[in-house]
Amino acid sequence: MSWAQTTLTLPSRSRGCYLITSTITDQVPAIKDYKVGLLNLFIQHTSCALSLNENWDEDVRADMGDALDRIVPEDKGRKGLYRHDAEGSDDMPAHVKSALVGASVTIPIKDGKLATGTWQGIWLLEFRNSKHSRKLVATIQGEKY
Amino acid sequence: MSWAQTTLTLPSRSRGCYLITSTITDQVPAIKDYKVGLLNLFIQHTSCALSLNENWDEDVRADMGDALDRIVPEDKGRKGLYRHDAEGSDDMPAHVKSALVGASVTIPIKDGKLATGTWQGIWLLEFRNSKHSRKLVATIQGEKY
Amino acid sequence: MSWAQTTLTLPSRSRGCYLITSTITDQVPAIKDYKVGLLNLFIQHTSCALSLNENWDEDVRADMGDALDRIVPEDKGRKGLYRHDAEGSDDMPAHVKSALVGASVTIPIKDGKLATGTWQGIWLLEFRNSKHSRKLVATIQGEKY
Repeated sequence: MSWAQTTLTLPSRSRGCYLITSTITDQVPAIKDYKVGLLNLFIQHTSCALSLNENWDEDVRADMGDALDRIVPEDKGRKGLYRHDAEGSDDMPAHVKSALVGASVTIPIKDGKLATGTWQGIWLLEFRNSKHSRKLVATIQGEKY
Repeated sequence: MSWAQTTLTLPSRSRGCYLITSTITDQVPAIKDYKVGLLNLFIQHTSCALSLNENWDEDVRADMGDALDRIVPEDKGRKGLYRHDAEGSDDMPAHVKSALVGASVTIPIKDGKLATGTWQGIWLLEFRNSKHSRKLVATIQGEKY
Repeated sequence: MSWAQTTLTLPSRSRGCYLITSTITDQVPAIKDYKVGLLNLFIQHTSCALSLNENWDEDVRADMGDALDRIVPEDKGRKGLYRHDAEGSDDMPAHVKSALVGASVTIPIKDGKLATGTWQGIWLLEFRNSKHSRKLVATIQGEKY
């Protein structure tokens, strides 16, 4: 049984959905040392999120952002939807989206690789308009070779 | 400390919510060997999801499907809600629902049993209309008896 | 490698979002014994949820409740939105919110502390109107000092 834990800083991104699978596998090379295990990715922020989702068609990422905007609209007409708007109209919707999608994912490791499906990739969903630097804690536990 | 990992193929299902607790406990009998631990269930697809939810009244499963359809509607009137519709009008809404509900659940194991509440069961939520075969990776870690 | 598992009963709360970080760290003192690890919190109910979210401005908690009510409305006008309403109009919306937000969170432990971000706290989201007693299983795994 063995543990590995590292903190990464993701490239700063403005609002949108991003495929970060290769960022993770490049920056957490220890994955390949584990015969069986679990990788937990935990983002230390409350206005972005992590997901497993489609890894092929970039339209899916664009559609996802639009769909979440419809589910959690900004208060464009100042109708009083939210009390908390200190940082702008994208502030509180970002917290709601973060609660819906979640701050962490746990992915099985099998034979030195993430046991994701053919069409699954790791996504960062950035909900704030302006670029933000996001820190992520990657924790692996498992049995090494 | 001990690990067990197995890949299951769930029975193919068309769109709907399904209680799969007994499928999991039947196909992952190793649960009963662990005095304390965690079971991670990870579905290798991006248009279905796993959840813990109500295990008694089948109306809850029917209502859940309807409620998610209201939250993430299909583009019935071809209003241009989604770019990605290669596989039909149920395609992109399935990816959004998958992001909202999530691809995995982690459940504590206590004294050889899942430490779920009285009314909690494991659900598969299938978001595509037609039957799909879904693979799930079950990973247990813990202390055996 | 070491495990700790305990079941807590959270203070009963009526509908709303609550910051429970200090409740957790007070009642799970074993966190400080672990140099590296993961804390899994699992709530044994299907009409409340756990999240990581903003820990400073209580307006965020009030806004979150309102936003979730808009996303998953009660059937105030008896339009037939839900089949399942045995326990009142807050019953089925609570199950849907529970599926969206989730019954558990997994948080990394680093150097005897939860490796949460500056603005992150652990939230209990209670979706039923009346006060409910909620049980939570806290499971730690990791390497002790």
